[in-house]
Amino acid sequence: MHIRVINPNTTQAMTDTIGEAARAVASPGTRITACQPDSGPVSIESHFDEAVSVMGVIEEVLAGEREGTDAYIIACFGDPGIYAARELTRAPVIGIAEAAFHMASLISTRFSIVTTLPRTMIIAEHLLESYGFSHNCRRIRAADIPVLDLEDNPDRALELIIEECLRAKREDNIGAIVLGCGGMADLTPTISEAVGLPVVEGVTAAIKLAEAVVGLGLGTSKFGDLAFPRPKPFIGRFESYSNLKLE
Amino acid sequence: MHIRVINPNTTQAMTDTIGEAARAVASPGTRITACQPDSGPVSIESHFDEAVSVMGVIEEVLAGEREGTDAYIIACFGDPGIYAARELTRAPVIGIAEAAFHMASLISTRFSIVTTLPRTMIIAEHLLESYGFSHNCRRIRAADIPVLDLEDNPDRALELIIEECLRAKREDNIGAIVLGCGGMADLTPTISEAVGLPVVEGVTAAIKLAEAVVGLGLGTSKFGDLAFPRPKPFIGRFESYSNLKLE
Amino acid sequence: MHIRVINPNTTQAMTDTIGEAARAVASPGTRITACQPDSGPVSIESHFDEAVSVMGVIEEVLAGEREGTDAYIIACFGDPGIYAARELTRAPVIGIAEAAFHMASLISTRFSIVTTLPRTMIIAEHLLESYGFSHNCRRIRAADIPVLDLEDNPDRALELIIEECLRAKREDNIGAIVLGCGGMADLTPTISEAVGLPVVEGVTAAIKLAEAVVGLGLGTSKFGDLAFPRPKPFIGRFESYSNLKLE
Amino acid sequence: MHIRVINPNTTQAMTDTIGEAARAVASPGTRITACQPDSGPVSIESHFDEAVSVMGVIEEVLAGEREGTDAYIIACFGDPGIYAARELTRAPVIGIAEAAFHMASLISTRFSIVTTLPRTMIIAEHLLESYGFSHNCRRIRAADIPVLDLEDNPDRALELIIEECLRAKREDNIGAIVLGCGGMADLTPTISEAVGLPVVEGVTAAIKLAEAVVGLGLGTSKFGDLAFPRPKPFIGRFESYSNLKLE
Amino acid sequence: MHIRVINPNTTQAMTDTIGEAARAVASPGTRITACQPDSGPVSIESHFDEAVSVMGVIEEVLAGEREGTDAYIIACFGDPGIYAARELTRAPVIGIAEAAFHMASLISTRFSIVTTLPRTMIIAEHLLESYGFSHNCRRIRAADIPVLDLEDNPDRALELIIEECLRAKREDNIGAIVLGCGGMADLTPTISEAVGLPVVEGVTAAIKLAEAVVGLGLGTSKFGDLAFPRPKPFIGRFESYSNLKLE
Amino acid sequence: MHIRVINPNTTQAMTDTIGEAARAVASPGTRITACQPDSGPVSIESHFDEAVSVMGVIEEVLAGEREGTDAYIIACFGDPGIYAARELTRAPVIGIAEAAFHMASLISTRFSIVTTLPRTMIIAEHLLESYGFSHNCRRIRAADIPVLDLEDNPDRALELIIEECLRAKREDNIGAIVLGCGGMADLTPTISEAVGLPVVEGVTAAIKLAEAVVGLGLGTSKFGDLAFPRPKPFIGRFESYSNLKLE
Repeated sequence: MHIRVINPNTTQAMTDTIGEAARAVASPGTRITACQPDSGPVSIESHFDEAVSVMGVIEEVLAGEREGTDAYIIACFGDPGIYAARELTRAPVIGIAEAAFHMASLISTRFSIVTTLPRTMIIAEHLLESYGFSHNCRRIRAADIPVLDLEDNPDRALELIIEECLRAKREDNIGAIVLGCGGMADLTPTISEAVGLPVVEGVTAAIKLAEAVVGLGLGTSKFGDLAFPRPKPFIGRFESYSNLKLE
Repeated sequence: MHIRVINPNTTQAMTDTIGEAARAVASPGTRITACQPDSGPVSIESHFDEAVSVMGVIEEVLAGEREGTDAYIIACFGDPGIYAARELTRAPVIGIAEAAFHMASLISTRFSIVTTLPRTMIIAEHLLESYGFSHNCRRIRAADIPVLDLEDNPDRALELIIEECLRAKREDNIGAIVLGCGGMADLTPTISEAVGLPVVEGVTAAIKLAEAVVGLGLGTSKFGDLAFPRPKPFIGRFESYSNLKLE
Repeated sequence: MHIRVINPNTTQAMTDTIGEAARAVASPGTRITACQPDSGPVSIESHFDEAVSVMGVIEEVLAGEREGTDAYIIACFGDPGIYAARELTRAPVIGIAEAAFHMASLISTRFSIVTTLPRTMIIAEHLLESYGFSHNCRRIRAADIPVLDLEDNPDRALELIIEECLRAKREDNIGAIVLGCGGMADLTPTISEAVGLPVVEGVTAAIKLAEAVVGLGLGTSKFGDLAFPRPKPFIGRFESYSNLKLE
Repeated sequence: MHIRVINPNTTQAMTDTIGEAARAVASPGTRITACQPDSGPVSIESHFDEAVSVMGVIEEVLAGEREGTDAYIIACFGDPGIYAARELTRAPVIGIAEAAFHMASLISTRFSIVTTLPRTMIIAEHLLESYGFSHNCRRIRAADIPVLDLEDNPDRALELIIEECLRAKREDNIGAIVLGCGGMADLTPTISEAVGLPVVEGVTAAIKLAEAVVGLGLGTSKFGDLAFPRPKPFIGRFESYSNLKLE
Repeated sequence: MHIRVINPNTTQAMTDTIGEAARAVASPGTRITACQPDSGPVSIESHFDEAVSVMGVIEEVLAGEREGTDAYIIACFGDPGIYAARELTRAPVIGIAEAAFHMASLISTRFSIVTTLPRTMIIAEHLLESYGFSHNCRRIRAADIPVLDLEDNPDRALELIIEECLRAKREDNIGAIVLGCGGMADLTPTISEAVGLPVVEGVTAAIKLAEAVVGLGLGTSKFGDLAFPRPKPFIGRFESYSNLKLE
Repeated sequence: MHIRVINPNTTQAMTDTIGEAARAVASPGTRITACQPDSGPVSIESHFDEAVSVMGVIEEVLAGEREGTDAYIIACFGDPGIYAARELTRAPVIGIAEAAFHMASLISTRFSIVTTLPRTMIIAEHLLESYGFSHNCRRIRAADIPVLDLEDNPDRALELIIEECLRAKREDNIGAIVLGCGGMADLTPTISEAVGLPVVEGVTAAIKLAEAVVGLGLGTSKFGDLAFPRPKPFIGRFESYSNLKLE
């Protein structure tokens, strides 16, 4: 099984972190390709960053389709471009936010999310509402660190995340914590040990969910809402998307 | 007041239709610029088309900011890129789907939506849920016509839309109909007369809402969730977005 | 365009305040008539006050219909009698609470409401639920001032409102504030400046929404739920409502 | 125990019907006063009719307070004026719609409502949403009969109601039917026998709920949202409400 | 009328408390049988305890059916086995949690729940969601006392409950308190007096609701979802349930 | 990895079917034990059957704990006893209904459920609501076959299920079908091929989810709501549960 893990931002160190975390949980027969777009923001901390990153997600799915890919992971906690990506392939496409929500709801009745910057909280909140997990989440919290501090200033970032997780444990009446950023993928064991609660991280959760879907012989439904896009002309910079041959 | 009406697809005829419909309802002091991206799909009928079109929306908002713009309209019924666009400006940004939902809920207790292709119904359904209008909408219906048939085969398209609206009137226990595609902007009076129900169309609704917001001295809040994006490097094709100077 | 702004209470000073605020935002072609019932409570601070005020709203709509009116505003934050009023006219009828909710949701992702007395909070809460804006509102707050203090003790009232707004800004993770009382209509600029957040006020919001609806050629749907009431006998003090000739 | 059953319309025959139905289920120690306002509409079939009827409800509660009353029933299926009425008394105030919803949810998982005119369906729908019973109700149906036909043309009315109930039984996957009009209070046994489903009727349900609340020594909470209204001046026709002495 | 009040745990003292509380509010013609299973947990403080207690509830309903019973109360705040019990009888079956929620929503707009151990809060929260009362409940609180302390250490337990109720009164913006444990059935008057808010207790509420349902000639619907179970073989310890003769 | 698949009913043939289906999708390192209680109903088609089956689920989890088990599956579409089971172990416990809902929501936007008897539809409906998947499910359908017909009359059962699935495909605007009974576990490939839609079956879905959770090093959170039950006396037939030593 070949899973393509797409880091939607363009920071190689984060792609490496994500890839290692993915490989650490992958089953023996699973091959992981961690990739990142050649164009886009170095980190995703706003709706604007996210919107641009969707183009990279699309490019990476199309590249994956050319190579043959069994499943895709979108490794940014806003699940950017998830429905667009699903339209482009028969393979399953799993977002790390949804993956974390699904997993956390299987092992606890209620969880809290700990993310990076406060302004990304609204993205998680909208996803909870749209996926139907609002009632499972007690509170969304931000450790107030820029995403790239996870790479550039990892000790301080880790400390702040653990502090926020401990506040969640004390105050939120929860059974688990969801880490709200792909860049935290390697920190799960350390945080879990420090906090004393199950900690669900999206990249690793998504790998196992992707293996699960593929293991069932399932993939994105091509009947109805997520069927391949109708071929049509695109112009200008996006001309290469004209009359895409998918299937 | 200068309103920039962004047709997120790249079909000039549709931009013209939208622009004319916008001008027809604009107040005397309102200047309308109807524009379209130089790159992107000729019509938007899938999540994929929509995702690509967001790049055009962003380009047009950035262009509008350079010129000085008082309000933006995103003239596609999926409101593509609305939160990203809002982050880029202090001006209000109004989507035509949300505009139509707001207006329809002011003149009726319940409405139905009539859109083009069945596969776009899920986009409208997700928007209703995310905006909080699910309980106002009885049913989403599709006339089963490709978007560009509105330009290429207008008589047949009009006929099919009216038939679907009449079914909605008979079966759905509603007080109003929402037209679910920017390309229908010029058809409102004809449909309304043929159907005998108030018909709410998003482009025209959005113009009036934009005038309303600007008239109140309000604009997109720059405090919190929709603040300007943090400046940062973008690489590759999107390098021009690096360290954007907004404000 | 002639908009009748109905202050449902019977305090002339408040009607004047509301009228001035309305005129301050009205478009050049809009004529504002601010009126109040000849009978009813001097302020509306309970469900009981509100229920009685509905009779005044009805009287003023019927008076407006005799004169010819293009739109009605119900200028009390509980939107008293809004569905009854809508049944009586083809013109749009806009409540100031709903108007503020619609506007605030266009410029921010989340807002808080600051109202007068704590006991009116439940009225706002019920409206949020019934209109579908619960998820847009983080918190309803009361400055704990009687409504008429807005007229009788304006400096103190303003101070308390600003304090509560600042608490909302600090604690609620919001992008905008909604003022929860028609009597605050003139305070918007002062509060907005003092608080440093967009402040949405219902009377002014409703004027612009009314202009928007009328500008679209729309009005209350007379098909279905909001059709004119069936003519019928009324007895006693309400005999004059017998067999109302509307249309 | 003295229960005041308020028919909010002014048709004596309906008040009699309601009173008889109430007495038929009242416990031995319960005294029923069935009353109607001296002013108002002869039937309630619109939001307008309902709004006017609220004044009668208020009058009858104030009259009840002067006499000493242990509980009030508002015997119209829109529960008009229920929160206003609750503010005026320490006694419980029960609406017949809410009473029917509570009872039906205790004996079945899902029910349908059968009401009179189609245009009153929206009133029931709003109540279901506001009370939290939407998920218990499969469908709201109208037999398409004016309210007063229940008195004037009772055989035909009964026939139409039974037909609609039988359709509900066949099509709606329900366990019970709720009758959606106070004027049907005497028809319950006949309908129930004809339909072969439990039939819940609001007047009788409300009597038993009122006895239940009083039997527990409970009444409307006077702490917080439903406290007595603040005394204040009313002017004009409503001057008598000035500085009400309640408690 | 004969009401069988089933204490699902096996502590006789608690059954006695519950029975006395039930008798204290029962109408003259109502006979109360308070019973408990011969097998099961001495208290119910977890989903596991609750699941085992359901077998006792079933036994007691079957015993009641043999004797002839007009209504059943399930006197544990998780309403264990309520749908199973309803399937076994034509009589109404009322849970004390639902009973308390129904009653509290009739006398207040919003309430808080005060229960025993924090871990039982999730059970109440799930019930609020499933019954549709989430919006009526501001907060679920635990006094942090084991259930049996209500019998073994009653003074201390009472003190802690009152303290928590007073915190709810101060902080939660509520009109009533719901006691979240059957073992508190005798404490209602004391707590109510100490707290100065209406206090709704489930056992007593359920008795009055049961009387109400029976008084209306209603019982569990045997059409559809809650029809008698299909007779079938059971094996092993549960063989006696094979081919149950109900009706 | 050792997964214990618990068929909560007592029909060996169904346990065998379930076990085979589980093994067919299990990963190489996964050992499946399919088991059934020694006591209980031969099939689960009502809340009563389900309630009794919970005792078997508990027994099988306790047996599993003695043996050492990495994950549990509850192989009945009502997920009977899921929270109780989770309290008894650190291992994950997955219900087949929730598993199917999670998986179906990853590969489609909307699905329909096809179950056996109409009366079990309410169980699925309650689960959708409680898990937060209501908006993902368009319709619950029953093929109107008793559960054991899946074993006794398999060809006819299969035919009826396929017919109902085809109706769902035609009428429900869905992308996938969820099979609503553990006894259908072996039919998935046949149905999927006949229907031409992705078909999600719960037993197989649960196996892969269990592998996923275990593969992440996660298990049921023992902090808060799902902690081990407090040890305490049980009496009578359930005395063996007294002071359970878990951990």
